[in-house]
Amino acid sequence: MKTLQDYIDKLNALNFKEMYNGDFFLTWEKSDDEIEAVFTVADALRFMRENNISTKVFESGLGISLFRDNSTRTRFSFASACNLLGLEVQDLDEGKSQVAHGETVRETANMISFMADVIGIRDDMYIGKGNAYMHEVVDAVTQGNKDGILEQKPTLVNLQCDIDHPTQAMADMLHIIHEFGGVENLKGKKLAMTWAYSPSYGKPLSVPQGIIGLMTRFGMDVVLAHPEGYEVFEEVEEVAKKNAEKSGGSFTKTNSMAEAFKDADIVYPKSWAPFAAMEKRTELYGNGDTDGIKALEKELLAQNAEHKDWACTEELMATTKDGKALYMHCLPADITGVSCKEGEVDASVFDRYRDPLYKEASFKPYIIAAMIFLAKFADPADILKKLEENGTPRVFK
Amino acid sequence: MKTLQDYIDKLNALNFKEMYNGDFFLTWEKSDDEIEAVFTVADALRFMRENNISTKVFESGLGISLFRDNSTRTRFSFASACNLLGLEVQDLDEGKSQVAHGETVRETANMISFMADVIGIRDDMYIGKGNAYMHEVVDAVTQGNKDGILEQKPTLVNLQCDIDHPTQAMADMLHIIHEFGGVENLKGKKLAMTWAYSPSYGKPLSVPQGIIGLMTRFGMDVVLAHPEGYEVFEEVEEVAKKNAEKSGGSFTKTNSMAEAFKDADIVYPKSWAPFAAMEKRTELYGNGDTDGIKALEKELLAQNAEHKDWACTEELMATTKDGKALYMHCLPADITGVSCKEGEVDASVFDRYRDPLYKEASFKPYIIAAMIFLAKFADPADILKKLEENGTPRVFK
Amino acid sequence: MKTLQDYIDKLNALNFKEMYNGDFFLTWEKSDDEIEAVFTVADALRFMRENNISTKVFESGLGISLFRDNSTRTRFSFASACNLLGLEVQDLDEGKSQVAHGETVRETANMISFMADVIGIRDDMYIGKGNAYMHEVVDAVTQGNKDGILEQKPTLVNLQCDIDHPTQAMADMLHIIHEFGGVENLKGKKLAMTWAYSPSYGKPLSVPQGIIGLMTRFGMDVVLAHPEGYEVFEEVEEVAKKNAEKSGGSFTKTNSMAEAFKDADIVYPKSWAPFAAMEKRTELYGNGDTDGIKALEKELLAQNAEHKDWACTEELMATTKDGKALYMHCLPADITGVSCKEGEVDASVFDRYRDPLYKEASFKPYIIAAMIFLAKFADPADILKKLEENGTPRVFK
Repeated sequence: MKTLQDYIDKLNALNFKEMYNGDFFLTWEKSDDEIEAVFTVADALRFMRENNISTKVFESGLGISLFRDNSTRTRFSFASACNLLGLEVQDLDEGKSQVAHGETVRETANMISFMADVIGIRDDMYIGKGNAYMHEVVDAVTQGNKDGILEQKPTLVNLQCDIDHPTQAMADMLHIIHEFGGVENLKGKKLAMTWAYSPSYGKPLSVPQGIIGLMTRFGMDVVLAHPEGYEVFEEVEEVAKKNAEKSGGSFTKTNSMAEAFKDADIVYPKSWAPFAAMEKRTELYGNGDTDGIKALEKELLAQNAEHKDWACTEELMATTKDGKALYMHCLPADITGVSCKEGEVDASVFDRYRDPLYKEASFKPYIIAAMIFLAKFADPADILKKLEENGTPRVFK
Repeated sequence: MKTLQDYIDKLNALNFKEMYNGDFFLTWEKSDDEIEAVFTVADALRFMRENNISTKVFESGLGISLFRDNSTRTRFSFASACNLLGLEVQDLDEGKSQVAHGETVRETANMISFMADVIGIRDDMYIGKGNAYMHEVVDAVTQGNKDGILEQKPTLVNLQCDIDHPTQAMADMLHIIHEFGGVENLKGKKLAMTWAYSPSYGKPLSVPQGIIGLMTRFGMDVVLAHPEGYEVFEEVEEVAKKNAEKSGGSFTKTNSMAEAFKDADIVYPKSWAPFAAMEKRTELYGNGDTDGIKALEKELLAQNAEHKDWACTEELMATTKDGKALYMHCLPADITGVSCKEGEVDASVFDRYRDPLYKEASFKPYIIAAMIFLAKFADPADILKKLEENGTPRVFK
Repeated sequence: MKTLQDYIDKLNALNFKEMYNGDFFLTWEKSDDEIEAVFTVADALRFMRENNISTKVFESGLGISLFRDNSTRTRFSFASACNLLGLEVQDLDEGKSQVAHGETVRETANMISFMADVIGIRDDMYIGKGNAYMHEVVDAVTQGNKDGILEQKPTLVNLQCDIDHPTQAMADMLHIIHEFGGVENLKGKKLAMTWAYSPSYGKPLSVPQGIIGLMTRFGMDVVLAHPEGYEVFEEVEEVAKKNAEKSGGSFTKTNSMAEAFKDADIVYPKSWAPFAAMEKRTELYGNGDTDGIKALEKELLAQNAEHKDWACTEELMATTKDGKALYMHCLPADITGVSCKEGEVDASVFDRYRDPLYKEASFKPYIIAAMIFLAKFADPADILKKLEENGTPRVFK
């Protein structure tokens, strides 16, 4: 697109009015129009920043971040998105304050939200918990707003839960759209979301689940590949199947990495833990069973080690479409001979794709900002138009 | 009130000119007009935020926070207040930098204040130290400003010291005013500030002291109740007595929780440590006497345990005015059967008052912002007027 | 100067066009005009802040700080500078995220820079590493910008490396200029940069190196004094020699503190570690040789202890020009009888110079802001002019 008006016109053709005052939990809870609205606003915000048009829509307000893990990438993406819109990030550090469940969640959620316009949560470690916790928080602030405690209901952005990683999957998808020159060119393209060996264990399932839950909506042939025993959450596979059917693409599974890579247009080789093992781990943590956790860790590492041949090698890459599928990863990757002895990907493959990988990551702040934008304004297209008319430069001139 | 002009008119009838370029240490160092000015500006700022009028009065500037304890609530209240006015919070983390006394205070206070408009300090742990430390900081930056080192003198906001907790007490009071429909309706109302059992020890005295030091100014009958041995700072009791006399209310003491609750309109049951024990603890810390500290801790917990009957039960609540006194707490509370086996309050009582409790807490960011506002502008009423005339929306529209 | 126009006129007479889109590594990589441009913009920004003219040139954008040590002063200086220009600081905490070298640097540098306008790095601990690391980061983001990953190339500000401490040295120099009433009054003045005893070890060399590398450019007679064995980086001595030659001043060395102080107009007594020892320490750390590190530490402390007579005493101060040389320090100082038993300076000397010392420190935020300003605008003089014309007040009025 060449002008902001193009994005505005596109938005005006979409129906996303349910997003106003809403939240973003899972991509498959959103309609196709809503997903497209996020992409469109993300692209529009990027266009505006690149053209030195300020997108600061908040004169004041806080963006609260709550991370259960340390995280540089997600932290910076969320901070960047908030800053782009005029919100100041305030971290609710688990080390600094205990966040528990039930009424305590209700209390803390209200206490931090008096000036909060957004809450971004990353809680991906425990199966059955992360997404549930986010809902608890949203319920609490929704009630707080109704009861007159909170003047506004802050919007939740799911920065990764146990089920989905919507900001990652959508940034990845926007990258694909840009690389392939538009959604209209994706029909029939083959995308391989495959497991890959890593010497670490317990990597979250939200990435593969997020990918199959979203990428099946665009008419692509999505293949999920993993060794036996590395199954992902069944309900998300169901989502993927229905998506594929509706979009005219396909969703298939295989236990062969080679089969998945064969003629693929896009490959996404990445390690994850078996769903069943993650469930067990959650239970062990719940019981405070440290010995059990250690035993499970050992077991999982041994299980991983049986599949060291699941690596994105030059040989495998050569079997993809014209030998040059788009290689994707959420980063950081376990690179063979660089970050570990044997890992997810050959160093030479990874190096060749650094630029596209970094571009892939660069969409995330804009995706997050777009989610916030669409939740905060009844008529986002009109706001974009007015921002352009105002023409306040981001950098003074 | 219905319009901002109402708040402005109210302000114009008050004399608070001494607050300009001042600081906020203790409520009883402020005149009645000054206290009312804080409430009025707090309400005005809230009115403006709720009506989407930006109150961003700083284009740049820092709000420095210095906490000796971890604190989610106070941290977020201070951050919210600063953000509302346009200041960016920068934490001076004790873990990150040593803050000592004497010349070191003078040096650090100047080093952090080159761009600081506000310094918020929470230092409540040691009797005789917290408030003194705040004065040291203010003296240092006042001198720094006079000597041409600092272009401006940052305003100090006492976020809790060993003597008073002014932002808490004033948020609590503003909550009472709103619940009872105005200061004019408080004459003759009975407020019970009472000790309550908690299985933790060493809780600061600044809350009960702050409450009796402030609430006695509005013609209410304030009762301070605690078991023998849980006396608060004598000087603050003197303040309370004088306040009551002047305001036409009363200040009485009792060792019976039942007596305090009887026909009370407002109850504030909360644990605290005995003043004498806190003094001893401060000395032990000063001497680095860890064995002594451990012994004292054990002793205090045992002493607390003798008074488990000091709990805000349904039975006691039934004895209050019409059985429905306003229950108050600075949060988090020790709730029986929820956050501890036996605590300050019955779960059913606490649950019934969640909404008012959260509203109570919601005033704190506005109280802090009002304290800053009144210290920073010679004519705050005029500034509010101009902000309304400018009509910059907080959220773009 | 009396008006902003004076600063603007001065700027317009200087050639600093190479600074646009550049970075700030070492002062001696900058021309005299460029150095003067930094001083001029720093003074202009201070003038504007003191006259309540907003210098907020960024509506949004991040300033990334990356510190290998804890640091209150540098942290607050960088945060203040960013805030003054409208950038929000986001810390890349080493504790929160691993930053390594090579491709990992490239990756992290890009990941944090999607919305970054500035990166400030302090990395002074390892000889041969800090400055090199900064270059790696700049190379990464320069490439990222060329490759279309980053919409802008963030500017690097060296907040202290193993070679130079440009923001400190330039703040110090601006302090000298102000104290002596202008650069034109410095010709022939004697500045003594001397080692002083401290009971701690391993203090970075970047301060003495920064001082001799910069102060020799203004026609002064700069003396570097230290006990035998406390040599600084030879290459920087070479820089100092050439500077002195070109500026018509002199650069000499001595092993006598008394000789250095004799008739000095300015004295800068400060501890540092021997260059050779720091090189050895870097190697030991690289090998993970903890025993070796402990042995070296012991050795260095013993070596220091042989030179306790290297202290800035009243007696020595009396030998300076009229007995009242300008005493300087980067702070915090090791004060005899205050922060340590025997240290760098007598308490009475230090106390007499508190005001000038704090003023010295107060220039640093403005120096950092000026470095950013000059890197971000093709015509900084024009921007200053427009900011004045706009006349947006920093504090609302």
